[in-house]
Amino acid sequence: KGGGKSGKQAVMRTWLRIDKHGETSLMQADKWRITHKLGIQTRDLRLLDPALSTTYPSAILCRDKAIVVNLEHLKAIITTTFVLVVNPEDEKVVRFINELKGRLSSPATGGGNGMPQSRSFQALTDAERMKLAPGPSTLGLDLPFELKALEVCLDVMAGHLDFLTQELEASAYPALDALANKVSSPHLERVRRIKNNLVRLTTRVETVREVLEKFLDDDSDMHDLNLTAKELHEQEERRQLAEANNVDAHSTASTTGSRSSGSSSSASSDSSVEEAETAVVEMLLETYFMHVDNTYNKLQTLHEYIGDTEDLVNIKLDQHRNQLITIDLILTAFTTVLAMMTVVGAWFGMNLWSGLEEAPNVFMQVSVGSSVIGLGLLVGFVTWLWRAKLIIY
Amino acid sequence: KGGGKSGKQAVMRTWLRIDKHGETSLMQADKWRITHKLGIQTRDLRLLDPALSTTYPSAILCRDKAIVVNLEHLKAIITTTFVLVVNPEDEKVVRFINELKGRLSSPATGGGNGMPQSRSFQALTDAERMKLAPGPSTLGLDLPFELKALEVCLDVMAGHLDFLTQELEASAYPALDALANKVSSPHLERVRRIKNNLVRLTTRVETVREVLEKFLDDDSDMHDLNLTAKELHEQEERRQLAEANNVDAHSTASTTGSRSSGSSSSASSDSSVEEAETAVVEMLLETYFMHVDNTYNKLQTLHEYIGDTEDLVNIKLDQHRNQLITIDLILTAFTTVLAMMTVVGAWFGMNLWSGLEEAPNVFMQVSVGSSVIGLGLLVGFVTWLWRAKLIIY
Amino acid sequence: KGGGKSGKQAVMRTWLRIDKHGETSLMQADKWRITHKLGIQTRDLRLLDPALSTTYPSAILCRDKAIVVNLEHLKAIITTTFVLVVNPEDEKVVRFINELKGRLSSPATGGGNGMPQSRSFQALTDAERMKLAPGPSTLGLDLPFELKALEVCLDVMAGHLDFLTQELEASAYPALDALANKVSSPHLERVRRIKNNLVRLTTRVETVREVLEKFLDDDSDMHDLNLTAKELHEQEERRQLAEANNVDAHSTASTTGSRSSGSSSSASSDSSVEEAETAVVEMLLETYFMHVDNTYNKLQTLHEYIGDTEDLVNIKLDQHRNQLITIDLILTAFTTVLAMMTVVGAWFGMNLWSGLEEAPNVFMQVSVGSSVIGLGLLVGFVTWLWRAKLIIY
Amino acid sequence: KGGGKSGKQAVMRTWLRIDKHGETSLMQADKWRITHKLGIQTRDLRLLDPALSTTYPSAILCRDKAIVVNLEHLKAIITTTFVLVVNPEDEKVVRFINELKGRLSSPATGGGNGMPQSRSFQALTDAERMKLAPGPSTLGLDLPFELKALEVCLDVMAGHLDFLTQELEASAYPALDALANKVSSPHLERVRRIKNNLVRLTTRVETVREVLEKFLDDDSDMHDLNLTAKELHEQEERRQLAEANNVDAHSTASTTGSRSSGSSSSASSDSSVEEAETAVVEMLLETYFMHVDNTYNKLQTLHEYIGDTEDLVNIKLDQHRNQLITIDLILTAFTTVLAMMTVVGAWFGMNLWSGLEEAPNVFMQVSVGSSVIGLGLLVGFVTWLWRAKLIIY
Amino acid sequence: KGGGKSGKQAVMRTWLRIDKHGETSLMQADKWRITHKLGIQTRDLRLLDPALSTTYPSAILCRDKAIVVNLEHLKAIITTTFVLVVNPEDEKVVRFINELKGRLSSPATGGGNGMPQSRSFQALTDAERMKLAPGPSTLGLDLPFELKALEVCLDVMAGHLDFLTQELEASAYPALDALANKVSSPHLERVRRIKNNLVRLTTRVETVREVLEKFLDDDSDMHDLNLTAKELHEQEERRQLAEANNVDAHSTASTTGSRSSGSSSSASSDSSVEEAETAVVEMLLETYFMHVDNTYNKLQTLHEYIGDTEDLVNIKLDQHRNQLITIDLILTAFTTVLAMMTVVGAWFGMNLWSGLEEAPNVFMQVSVGSSVIGLGLLVGFVTWLWRAKLIIY
Repeated sequence: KGGGKSGKQAVMRTWLRIDKHGETSLMQADKWRITHKLGIQTRDLRLLDPALSTTYPSAILCRDKAIVVNLEHLKAIITTTFVLVVNPEDEKVVRFINELKGRLSSPATGGGNGMPQSRSFQALTDAERMKLAPGPSTLGLDLPFELKALEVCLDVMAGHLDFLTQELEASAYPALDALANKVSSPHLERVRRIKNNLVRLTTRVETVREVLEKFLDDDSDMHDLNLTAKELHEQEERRQLAEANNVDAHSTASTTGSRSSGSSSSASSDSSVEEAETAVVEMLLETYFMHVDNTYNKLQTLHEYIGDTEDLVNIKLDQHRNQLITIDLILTAFTTVLAMMTVVGAWFGMNLWSGLEEAPNVFMQVSVGSSVIGLGLLVGFVTWLWRAKLIIY
Repeated sequence: KGGGKSGKQAVMRTWLRIDKHGETSLMQADKWRITHKLGIQTRDLRLLDPALSTTYPSAILCRDKAIVVNLEHLKAIITTTFVLVVNPEDEKVVRFINELKGRLSSPATGGGNGMPQSRSFQALTDAERMKLAPGPSTLGLDLPFELKALEVCLDVMAGHLDFLTQELEASAYPALDALANKVSSPHLERVRRIKNNLVRLTTRVETVREVLEKFLDDDSDMHDLNLTAKELHEQEERRQLAEANNVDAHSTASTTGSRSSGSSSSASSDSSVEEAETAVVEMLLETYFMHVDNTYNKLQTLHEYIGDTEDLVNIKLDQHRNQLITIDLILTAFTTVLAMMTVVGAWFGMNLWSGLEEAPNVFMQVSVGSSVIGLGLLVGFVTWLWRAKLIIY
Repeated sequence: KGGGKSGKQAVMRTWLRIDKHGETSLMQADKWRITHKLGIQTRDLRLLDPALSTTYPSAILCRDKAIVVNLEHLKAIITTTFVLVVNPEDEKVVRFINELKGRLSSPATGGGNGMPQSRSFQALTDAERMKLAPGPSTLGLDLPFELKALEVCLDVMAGHLDFLTQELEASAYPALDALANKVSSPHLERVRRIKNNLVRLTTRVETVREVLEKFLDDDSDMHDLNLTAKELHEQEERRQLAEANNVDAHSTASTTGSRSSGSSSSASSDSSVEEAETAVVEMLLETYFMHVDNTYNKLQTLHEYIGDTEDLVNIKLDQHRNQLITIDLILTAFTTVLAMMTVVGAWFGMNLWSGLEEAPNVFMQVSVGSSVIGLGLLVGFVTWLWRAKLIIY
Repeated sequence: KGGGKSGKQAVMRTWLRIDKHGETSLMQADKWRITHKLGIQTRDLRLLDPALSTTYPSAILCRDKAIVVNLEHLKAIITTTFVLVVNPEDEKVVRFINELKGRLSSPATGGGNGMPQSRSFQALTDAERMKLAPGPSTLGLDLPFELKALEVCLDVMAGHLDFLTQELEASAYPALDALANKVSSPHLERVRRIKNNLVRLTTRVETVREVLEKFLDDDSDMHDLNLTAKELHEQEERRQLAEANNVDAHSTASTTGSRSSGSSSSASSDSSVEEAETAVVEMLLETYFMHVDNTYNKLQTLHEYIGDTEDLVNIKLDQHRNQLITIDLILTAFTTVLAMMTVVGAWFGMNLWSGLEEAPNVFMQVSVGSSVIGLGLLVGFVTWLWRAKLIIY
Repeated sequence: KGGGKSGKQAVMRTWLRIDKHGETSLMQADKWRITHKLGIQTRDLRLLDPALSTTYPSAILCRDKAIVVNLEHLKAIITTTFVLVVNPEDEKVVRFINELKGRLSSPATGGGNGMPQSRSFQALTDAERMKLAPGPSTLGLDLPFELKALEVCLDVMAGHLDFLTQELEASAYPALDALANKVSSPHLERVRRIKNNLVRLTTRVETVREVLEKFLDDDSDMHDLNLTAKELHEQEERRQLAEANNVDAHSTASTTGSRSSGSSSSASSDSSVEEAETAVVEMLLETYFMHVDNTYNKLQTLHEYIGDTEDLVNIKLDQHRNQLITIDLILTAFTTVLAMMTVVGAWFGMNLWSGLEEAPNVFMQVSVGSSVIGLGLLVGFVTWLWRAKLIIY
């Protein structure tokens, strides 16, 4: 049933477009235009469909001219010149949009107003530009807009996951301590709900963590994320090809030596430039990987804490039961002794002739005697229990 | 015993043949023809034998001229021009056949009739073709039919697994909540059946997941799946070889320079074309990997939920038992007190002379006195239990 | 102590030799001859020593001119022309020998007599030969005898492990269902024995699985298994070297161009030929890996089933205990009420003057009154238990 | 809220600067200067912010001209000429500073005064220098200061983690043995606290272990840590480039041969020099990895010890409970027998005419008879229990 | 405190030196000489310090001119000409020394005297030499002494670990079976000690296993272990360099062609020689890896056996408890019935006028009647329990 519906919705969807200067505009675009203009596929668009959000996990897909981002609630397409955001009315997405607009509207200055991370990439790219461009840079045309947007995505997402984790921790630790103190149904239900949330949140954090790890493990994938660099390389290639064709037309033989040396030098510089371009992305992802990894570790620690608490509760319940049974045992022993005394009483209460009916001190002898014997037996029994280490607790 | 039987069955089996235009025909083919014509092995055919379905897990085998698909109930051989399906009468396979026929009969248009994914590959290949073919394409002869068929296979299979998972979830969560509320044999049996199903389904989903992951981890395997591209490369190679032989025959010396440059350029373009061809397959598998991975995560979550519920049930049973034992303990204490009172009664009921037989108020003194003392002891005992934190629950 | 014994045994051991035509002969060979002729090491022979079978796990070692196979009970050395089998009298080994002889004695025909897999490799090699040899083949001298033998080894071994697994499953599932129904010592002992067998069988299957996986992960190792191809390459190399020396002696300068082109073409064809040779082995191992992997999955499923049954049994025992304790509690409450009534009876049975001795209706008042009060208390108590959800089960 | 605060703090922070000669000076530096001068990013500085220490795990980041170290409490930036330490007042950091100063102030001599490890790197670099520089060294300008500092970091950190582990072990083993002897709430609480600490410490040690492992797995990352070598290579490159330009200007054609041979020889020597430079770092990290790995193993062993103790405690509690219940059962049986005797007594105590009231020996017959029968039943019951293996413990 | 002590000890330590001919001599050497002569580092020596044996795990470090071996109790430095052993008085080390001396003193003959493995490497190297040296060998100068020594190390170590494992198994299986039969504190303590030993031994075996695995995963590391080959390569290189210089001085131009062809041929033979040299080490390590891996598997199996036994014991204890409680329940029911009869007796024993005092048959009616009613109730109750499946066990 979702197929037909999403099919119609997907044909014409409203996107929020944020351009390089942080200006936003609502845009209507059907699937066909999106897929053709941005070089992404209809299949990828399914990831961004809020109606299918339970079908697809978090993912960052690097396509030819765009990055498709599906991180938790953030669903966006990032290109070198603009960002398309799905569901711009969603509260959490609004936060992302504001952050991104703030970041873009302060390209070189103004980083001091409470947004330390918005300056970080500036600094990075300044430093990186110097590194990347010892000679006339082949990259220095523009700051990679798409990485800026990606960083804000990751920052908002990592912050969100960390927030959820802290929230969960804040509710989990008191609940667990309460359970450790007193086992009761409401406490158990509360812990169960927390465990359930923990499992779901862990799966989400783990998915994001794996997405980042997969990128960090593959240099070429990271390089592909640097769309601007890729575009520049393609332009450069086309220019060279055109030049080469011109040159070939004029004079083939004479330039062979110089061209081969040129190409080899460009090859060597190419590899170092590519390395630098990859490094920009790597350092970006690395930081957020560490952040998400730390969130993941917190969740793991919480998970183990829950397990430990349950172990403790189990042992406590067992030990408590043993205490109860021990006391019960002593009471039973006491009852048994009393039953013995009752038997004596009952015997002498029988309407049978014992010959002692009128003897003067027998009453006291019997009652005191049986009491003393009974108590003696009880004390002996408890002492034996103690000696046999059966009442160690 | 299965050997002889399958040996005979395999010699002449009925296949459903679906060609490029979605037209179907029943086909009789013995093993020998299949293996020789399609370059697959008798060993591979064993995977497609429904009689051995428990012996072999899900697999996608890439052979020279065909892809052997054994995904759950779907057993098929995909070539560049047709698909051979085993067991075409099976209900689930019929769904696959219809989907595939629908997809193939609407090659360029008509994607709007409730099948959004049937247009996805079209879009892809349009976009991809443009990417793959900046000059005269070496690939653009035909759309890769085999990938279309594979996508339908994966789509049907992923949908089927997701459906099974949702079905299992729909029956599992109420059963677990029922168990958490009330532990009873029927509930336990139900949960056990669900756990058993979960384990089996998880194994199946995991197998499919690993099959896809293995392909995604190996670029050359993915490229091999693009049979059409492989075929074209081979034709191209043969053509070049033939040309080269011709050229060599005519003029060896003069063309050395140009040929070497030509081959080097073709080499470089080759690698990028190959990359693009691989990318087509990668993007295809990636989407379905994510889908299956998500299904797998759901099953894992369910697995942990079951574990958590069992932990909860265990603690609940323990805590309930402790409550019962606590009440039992208090009752035992009360009985003990009553036994003490009985002893007093029994003593005075003895047919022995106590000297108090005729004393006027002794009756009340004894009965009230022993009652008061008894209740006092009981209250003292319970208070002590409370103080010693033995009745905390 | 085993050292000296095995040292003597190893010096002169009886081997069963099976040659290319399936003919068998007993052979006496000391260690020295084996190691020197086949290029394997004394260390490797230790793997084949039945006396040390618990020291070494399953392994397939690829040596220079031979494959040393130690798969479960199958201990053999495979070369390009014959197979040496250890322990030829062993029942399970006899099965392997028969299978291998049958396979070898029907080289091109006669595959229809109940052995479908014996034709599989024929078909493969036919198909492969065509693939491998578009020009004059460098490989097509002979069918790789060693792979045929290896396939029979793997087939017998995989079948054996699968048989053991099915046997274990056949005994495990009834035993577990019996345990789930009734917990008793014999059932527990039976399940324990099954678990023990399961652990040992899992270790064995896992070892075989890892052996195959390691080969599948390393292309060069797989290529080494194709001993015939390796031999041919070496011969080819020596021939080329000899030729080259001859050529060099005659005319160095003139042939430089042609030779370099020749070597480059042979290099390119070499790589594709090598790929094909590796593919032959890969497809062989892949099938048996899937088979063993499936066996492994079955064992894992059984393992989880046992775990689930134990969880169920634990919860069932706990819940049963709670039921027993609940009933015990109600009985105790009833006893307490009866004790109260006994106290009343004992009081009035005291030989003390109560003044009611001769009153007419007191007897009925006391007995009925105390009964009613007792039953009232009991009902009240049980109602309270029910209300407090202490008798939910 | 932390953003604004850390934003302000980060703008101007106090660093302790330790130069090559072990001299320290306090330094005020704002973010901008640090990031620009050292080629690190604002993002990296966040790792060193003590206020965000729970957000980021341990890490060693290798940047262009500096190593950012965040190992537990140690937060520092290491360059080729100086070390910047955050939080120099912290007690644990002071230890690191002293160690580093001691190490630096005794560059060639004086290693005997209780600091054996401070000589180790000297020895290393002596040995290494000889290895690295068979001809005129391209590296031998200076000892790599940054590796010296890094070694002290790792040494202090590994020692600290080992110390914490030993401390935890020292408190854990007695607590666990106490718990195994006597299960009580204080013991349980103590063990729970220890488990919690263990989980947290394990996470920390694991993080450090993974940081080191990741470096050891990647040779190029290790080589990057050798900042001095990297700097020298860059200088060399620039020099060569300059030379080449000069040479090219003078005579291009004549030097082609020599230059190409020169570059190839330098390439080959480059790779071996690089290998040696990497080996220096590898051997350094390897030792500390082994140390941390051993600490990790200790924690794992402790973890398993706790698990085993809990299993033991559980079984002990269960077995103790069974003992208690067995005794309780025998007491109950005794009480039941006494109740039977009481019934007999009560019957004969009824004020009903039995006809035996005056019979002479009935009293003794009834009392002795019922006692004998009662004891007989009890003995029979216990014997049956014993025979039925119900009192085996 | 350990620092100063080990600092002094390390300065001058006694080593046992075993040379190529198996002759031993005690040697005094300070740290400085060891580190400088053998190209190993002070850091590495710390591994060999018996006082720090708990700080460092098992390791095999491959240094420039020596292999540092720290396998369990075996602490040695192996060079191409001698072995230095730490702690030569230790009993276990003496075994190693004797084995090594025996091996070295019988270089070519005499392998039949109970040491089958001492001939293995001879055979290997014979076979290998033939393989390695088709032309004038670059390796055949001497047998690699260091690999001989390493093999003895591994053999002694693997045997030692296997011995410990068998010892543990021999004590574990009876203890576990005893526990399964009868749960008692001494048995529990015994099993706990065994589990503790198991965990520690597993960690040790796992460490050794990982050390070997790491080498097997890295071909270049394995090649480095072949110190003799490395040395030869270096000599060869120096010789070639010297030659080349000579040649260059005489005639540069004329030899260019021949030299390049020579270097290329040497390069190709180099790679195959290197492969063979690596193969020697690989086959050596592989065997011992399999041995250690098998030991590891045994420990894992034991671990699972312990877990299974504990599960069994838990279920058995639970089921036993349920049996006890069931019997207790029936006894309680019987007591309750008796209490009812007592109440009847007590009522009629009241000194109240019931009007039945003198009725003739009431005594029998009451006593027999209440007995019958009581037994009826009891039978009814037990029947109900049975029907309700509450006494299934």
